Amino acid sequence: MPVNISPLLAEQLLPIDGIALGITEAGIKKMNRKDLLVITLDAGTTVAGVFTQNRFCAAPVLVAKNNLTQQSIRALVVNTGNANAGTGEMGLQHTQTTCAALAALLGCDAQQVLPFSTGVIMEPLPIDVILKGLPAAVVNLKADNWFDAAHTILTTDIVPKAVSKQIQLDGQTITITGIAKGSGMIRPNMATMLGYVATDAAISQSLLQEMAQYAADHSFNRITVDGDTSTNDSFMLLATGRAGAEITSKESAAFIQLQEAVTEVSTTLAKMIVRDGEGATKFITVQVDAGKNHDECAKVAYAIAHSPLVKTAFFASDPNLGRILAAIGYAGVNDLVVDGIQLYLDKVLVAEHGGRAQNYQEEDGQRVMNQSEITVRVVLNRGIATTTVWTCDFSYDYVKINSDYRS
Amino acid sequence: MPVNISPLLAEQLLPIDGIALGITEAGIKKMNRKDLLVITLDAGTTVAGVFTQNRFCAAPVLVAKNNLTQQSIRALVVNTGNANAGTGEMGLQHTQTTCAALAALLGCDAQQVLPFSTGVIMEPLPIDVILKGLPAAVVNLKADNWFDAAHTILTTDIVPKAVSKQIQLDGQTITITGIAKGSGMIRPNMATMLGYVATDAAISQSLLQEMAQYAADHSFNRITVDGDTSTNDSFMLLATGRAGAEITSKESAAFIQLQEAVTEVSTTLAKMIVRDGEGATKFITVQVDAGKNHDECAKVAYAIAHSPLVKTAFFASDPNLGRILAAIGYAGVNDLVVDGIQLYLDKVLVAEHGGRAQNYQEEDGQRVMNQSEITVRVVLNRGIATTTVWTCDFSYDYVKINSDYRS
Repeated sequence: MPVNISPLLAEQLLPIDGIALGITEAGIKKMNRKDLLVITLDAGTTVAGVFTQNRFCAAPVLVAKNNLTQQSIRALVVNTGNANAGTGEMGLQHTQTTCAALAALLGCDAQQVLPFSTGVIMEPLPIDVILKGLPAAVVNLKADNWFDAAHTILTTDIVPKAVSKQIQLDGQTITITGIAKGSGMIRPNMATMLGYVATDAAISQSLLQEMAQYAADHSFNRITVDGDTSTNDSFMLLATGRAGAEITSKESAAFIQLQEAVTEVSTTLAKMIVRDGEGATKFITVQVDAGKNHDECAKVAYAIAHSPLVKTAFFASDPNLGRILAAIGYAGVNDLVVDGIQLYLDKVLVAEHGGRAQNYQEEDGQRVMNQSEITVRVVLNRGIATTTVWTCDFSYDYVKINSDYRS
Repeated sequence: MPVNISPLLAEQLLPIDGIALGITEAGIKKMNRKDLLVITLDAGTTVAGVFTQNRFCAAPVLVAKNNLTQQSIRALVVNTGNANAGTGEMGLQHTQTTCAALAALLGCDAQQVLPFSTGVIMEPLPIDVILKGLPAAVVNLKADNWFDAAHTILTTDIVPKAVSKQIQLDGQTITITGIAKGSGMIRPNMATMLGYVATDAAISQSLLQEMAQYAADHSFNRITVDGDTSTNDSFMLLATGRAGAEITSKESAAFIQLQEAVTEVSTTLAKMIVRDGEGATKFITVQVDAGKNHDECAKVAYAIAHSPLVKTAFFASDPNLGRILAAIGYAGVNDLVVDGIQLYLDKVLVAEHGGRAQNYQEEDGQRVMNQSEITVRVVLNRGIATTTVWTCDFSYDYVKINSDYRS
């Protein structure tokens, strides 16, 4: 079950002026399940995005990246149940056909539509089912549909992931609303599975792109469930400009304030993905401090966060903390001197001088391990860099979910 | 249960002239369990070894590496139940004390003893229990004790791993016998958890060291269960010289013949570790062909072999083969063009031209997935390098074993 996520209420999600969302049950993989989402953007909306670095990236990722190079994007279309990845030339055609069909319904060009897919890889996209579903999604378009949209994009997720936030910018109230999905195949590399954050602030595309990259690097790019980078990761940042408060410079207070708020919304969504990680029973923060640089901090953090042995020990609430030392040791920091390292579990000093700390008592470690939220802190004592990664434990249910996924 | 390993019979293991083995139940972690092994070597035996690259390497690894620099090694001592890793200065003292106590019993110097430990990390070695157990192990010393020795070094392993082989070298019969242990925390980097291969051939230490490195690189360094590189990995190659047939040159036919035989014994042991991988139900060979170089082939092979999503699909016998494409895509080969890749499951062509192969039928993939031995073959079509890695699937029992490990 998801770790400490409060149930989402529809009234918590604030509409964004200039954006409408329409959903339907197209029947892409299963019947009676919301699986197709259309998002329309008023003219003048700027759009930025970051995409997966996976070389087997999906057809919709290729098309979305291409269409994004010319601006004046007017719609996004998202299907679940099929990733349209590893589908070759036919997959590209299916994506183009989807964009063209939606463009015809909305009265825009196919190049003004950004497509997204998530689901099983290497199976043909059921294009007829999608084409049949699009008109119903368009009829359903409305501004206060974020709650249903958050449900529509889920796959193995148990809970929907969405959040809204308001800030004051130059005397204007600016609203930010975001939704995301993701639960397995999660080690985003430039983006999460799927994340959409929208605001009514006014900002140019180039500034918005910088903000999207910054927000992804500090949120979705800091999480991992199983170390598998998806073929379909996409994070989109949309700005309709309807609330005014135009941001014109990267150095302005307004840019920094909006960037912080967008990053906060993105981080909340990213952490929700980990909390709802496949089979997760615990939420683990891995913080590596005092490294020479970001790269070595990240190597150590990910070695811990990806170790099946560390993750099963968390699942068992077993303070078998030598497994964390072993992961630090094989992280690939070749000149690491282990005598200088401190390992903390929350505030409990577990290891230093290459071994168990003198005052460490197993009952102290056990107390922390019993919690549902745990911080592993490694102090490398060789510099001033620091990195934080969020992950979850590894349970029977992870195996169960991924053994049954296609059935 | 272990995948396709025939039960080991004591009479299959041939003694090596010049080597005796003694075992006892010292009670290091549990009572009534063989947990302490002494191996004695006649004077003139050459010894070579490769050790873990983990920066948190265990105290016995540090001492064994150091003692190996001077030759005339006369004994090895191996305990299970405690890894003596992450134990700082005290761990080093315990290891030195163990070597000194065994040396006193055997009438040699402490520096002529190589120590090895395996078991839980970051717990103090129960040195009193080991010191009390050593005399009984020494009393038990005999040449035909390889079968019991193979049992003594096990931890979470279900089955013992041992094999003997004889070859003719220059008209002499040369015997090679090896034992190994390992089941979890398996991604050896220069060696397996613990492996000991002995021969009665005569060969200098420097030639033996080259042979040990070659054998490790082609056997233990090609396997992975969970991607966790142990703190204690050690692979030792022992040559008593009692059978004559002295090998004096790396270019000699005898060197090559012995190296092939030692590598074959090591590979058999390494594959047994995977077949007995924690929770394993399938034995998977991942072969990557036609790469630009070994490094990129290995990246692709390990990305597949480490992916929890790929491994759970094998457990479920689910031909959800898009997960393999995703793993290839994020393996870190940045200029990889996916259109050029072919993916085979045994002889079945699954994917090419960036997607599902035209003649691929799911029933063909299903038939292979139902087998207990499966070869995944990726043809990169960009060079002539090739690499093979052996791994197993990822089951409920992996989680169970590692959640219960210390209880």
